[in-house]
Amino acid sequence: MKKTVTVLAMHAEMMSLFPNKPDTWDLVDVSDGIDSAIAKNADKVEVLLSASIEILDKPTLDQFPNLKMIASISAGFSNVDLDECRRRGIAVTNSPGLNSPDVADIAVSMMTSLLLKFPQNQHYILSDQWKTKSGPLRHSIRTAVIGIVGLGSIGLEAVKRLEPFGADLRWWGPRDKPDVGLPYVPTIKQLAEQCQGLIVCCRPDDSTHHLINQEILDLLGSDGVVVNVSRGTVVDETALIESLKSGAIAGAGLDVFDPEPTSAERWKDVPNVILTPHQGGTTYQTLFAQAALTQNNIQNFVNHEPLLTSVL
Amino acid sequence: MKKTVTVLAMHAEMMSLFPNKPDTWDLVDVSDGIDSAIAKNADKVEVLLSASIEILDKPTLDQFPNLKMIASISAGFSNVDLDECRRRGIAVTNSPGLNSPDVADIAVSMMTSLLLKFPQNQHYILSDQWKTKSGPLRHSIRTAVIGIVGLGSIGLEAVKRLEPFGADLRWWGPRDKPDVGLPYVPTIKQLAEQCQGLIVCCRPDDSTHHLINQEILDLLGSDGVVVNVSRGTVVDETALIESLKSGAIAGAGLDVFDPEPTSAERWKDVPNVILTPHQGGTTYQTLFAQAALTQNNIQNFVNHEPLLTSVL
Repeated sequence: MKKTVTVLAMHAEMMSLFPNKPDTWDLVDVSDGIDSAIAKNADKVEVLLSASIEILDKPTLDQFPNLKMIASISAGFSNVDLDECRRRGIAVTNSPGLNSPDVADIAVSMMTSLLLKFPQNQHYILSDQWKTKSGPLRHSIRTAVIGIVGLGSIGLEAVKRLEPFGADLRWWGPRDKPDVGLPYVPTIKQLAEQCQGLIVCCRPDDSTHHLINQEILDLLGSDGVVVNVSRGTVVDETALIESLKSGAIAGAGLDVFDPEPTSAERWKDVPNVILTPHQGGTTYQTLFAQAALTQNNIQNFVNHEPLLTSVL
Repeated sequence: MKKTVTVLAMHAEMMSLFPNKPDTWDLVDVSDGIDSAIAKNADKVEVLLSASIEILDKPTLDQFPNLKMIASISAGFSNVDLDECRRRGIAVTNSPGLNSPDVADIAVSMMTSLLLKFPQNQHYILSDQWKTKSGPLRHSIRTAVIGIVGLGSIGLEAVKRLEPFGADLRWWGPRDKPDVGLPYVPTIKQLAEQCQGLIVCCRPDDSTHHLINQEILDLLGSDGVVVNVSRGTVVDETALIESLKSGAIAGAGLDVFDPEPTSAERWKDVPNVILTPHQGGTTYQTLFAQAALTQNNIQNFVNHEPLLTSVL
C-alpha cells in the first residue's frame, strides 16, 4: 500500500489546480476557511501548498509540528523564512520560469505602447486637440534604444519579442553573460544614459531595492520611459510619480507597485501611465503549468527522488 | 547644361524634406502660402509634390497647363483623378510600402495591449477595484487566435512582430497567397468566427468599404478585439462604437477614423479603446525615406529613365 501524505493548500482557490492529483494525497478540506482548516489539521500536515503571498515565518511554522515540505506554485519564495526551514529540515520548492513568457508579453506591450505614446495620443484625441487632417509626427520604434534591466528568463523572452521591432537592445545586470549575444552595459547609470526605454525585470532583493531612483530617472530624461514587471520595491515609486508629473520622464508602465494593491488616489493626475494589477504571470495556462510542476515536486519528495526545482 | 525642372510642393512643410535636392530643381517659393505660390507660378510648374491629402481633381489640374508629373511622398493616391491625368499624359508616382514597419508597430502594440486588457486593467486600478493582493486571472496571449485582414506589406510586418508572442495567426484577403506560409481563411466571416482579434490592414477601396460591419463584430464576439490601421471607412464606426458600449466586443484600437480628424465627443463613454491620430506611418524616418524615393522618381522622370514606383 502506498503511503499517503497530508497536504494543505494555503488558499481555497488552489484546490482546483490539481485535477490529476495522486490518490495518495490527503488534501485537507478548506471549505470552512484556512484558519479553521489549520486549527483542525495542523498536527498532521506534512506538505504546505503555498502561493508565495502568505507569510511563512517562525510563528506560522510553529503551528505545523510535522511539516516536511513547503511547495510553492509561484516563482517567489521571499515570504518563507528559509533559515528557519533549514533548521527544521523542511524542504522548499518553487515553480520558477514558467510565467516568463506571460510577463514578457506585458513588459513588451507596455514598452512599445509607451514609445508610441499611446497615453499621450489618447489624451490628444479625447481633449479634442486633433484639428488638422494629419496627426503629429513621431519617431519610428526602430530608432529607439531599449535597455533590459536584468537578463533572466523574463528579459530573454522580452528580447525575443522586441527584436522584430528593430530597436537597438542592450542590457545591464550584476554580471555579464557573454553568451547571450546582446550588448552588455557595465552600470545601470550608463544604461539609463544610453537608453530611451528601460524594462525592469531583475530579481528583487536588497541589492536592487530602489535601483531605479531619481538619479536614474533623470539620466533617462524627458523622452524616457520605464516599464517595471519585477517588484514594486525595485523602483522608487514616489520619485517615479514626481518625474511623471513634472515631465522629467515621458511615461511608465507598471504591473507591480509598492505597496500592492495600489490605490486609485496614488495615480490621480499622474499622466502617461499604463497600469496593470500585478497580473504579468497570473494566467490560467501558467497557473496550471506551475501546479503540475509543484505536484511533481511533491511526488518526488514523497518518493525520495531528486526535487525538480528546490530552493532548499 | 542640365535642364531645370519647376517643382511645386503642395505643403510648405514638405520644403524641408529634400535636403539633397538636385540643383536642377527650381523649387517654387511657398513662403507666402500655397495659394499665392500657385497664382504666381502655376504656368511653369512641371512637377507637383503631393502629400496625398490635397484634392488633385480636374479643376485643380486645369490650373497647371504645363504639369507633367504628380509625385506623391505618400503611399496613397486616392486624391488624384487618375483618368484625367491619363488623358493629359501626366505621370503619377507614389511612395508605397516604406511606412509598413511603422504602421505594423502600432497595429501589433494595439493588438497585444487589447488582448492584455490594458484599458480594462487601468480602469480596474483607477476605480479602486483592486482590493486583494493578487490581481485577476487572465489568459496567455499564446492561446489567442489573431486574424490579419489583408496580407500586404503591413500585414507581413505585423506577422513578423506577432510571431514571438506565440499566438495562432491566420489571414484573409481577396486571393490566397500560398507562398506566405500562413493559414488562409477563405472568407472574412470565417476569419471573424475563428479569431479573438482582427488586425485590419487591407487596401481601402469599394470592395472593403464597411468590410468590418455589425455581422463581423457579432461573429468576433464578446472577447473579440479589432485593430484598424487601414482607413476609417473599412470599419462601420457607428456599429463598432455601439458594440463597444454594449459589450458585444471587448475592445478596439484605432489609428484611422471616419471622418478624420475624429472628435472627442464621438468617443465619450466608449470603453476599452486605444486611439491614435492617424500617425501609423508618419514618422520622421519614414517621411525622409519617402521623400528620397520621390526625389529619385522625379530625377528618373526628368532623365527619361524608368520610374521606380509609378501609379500611372
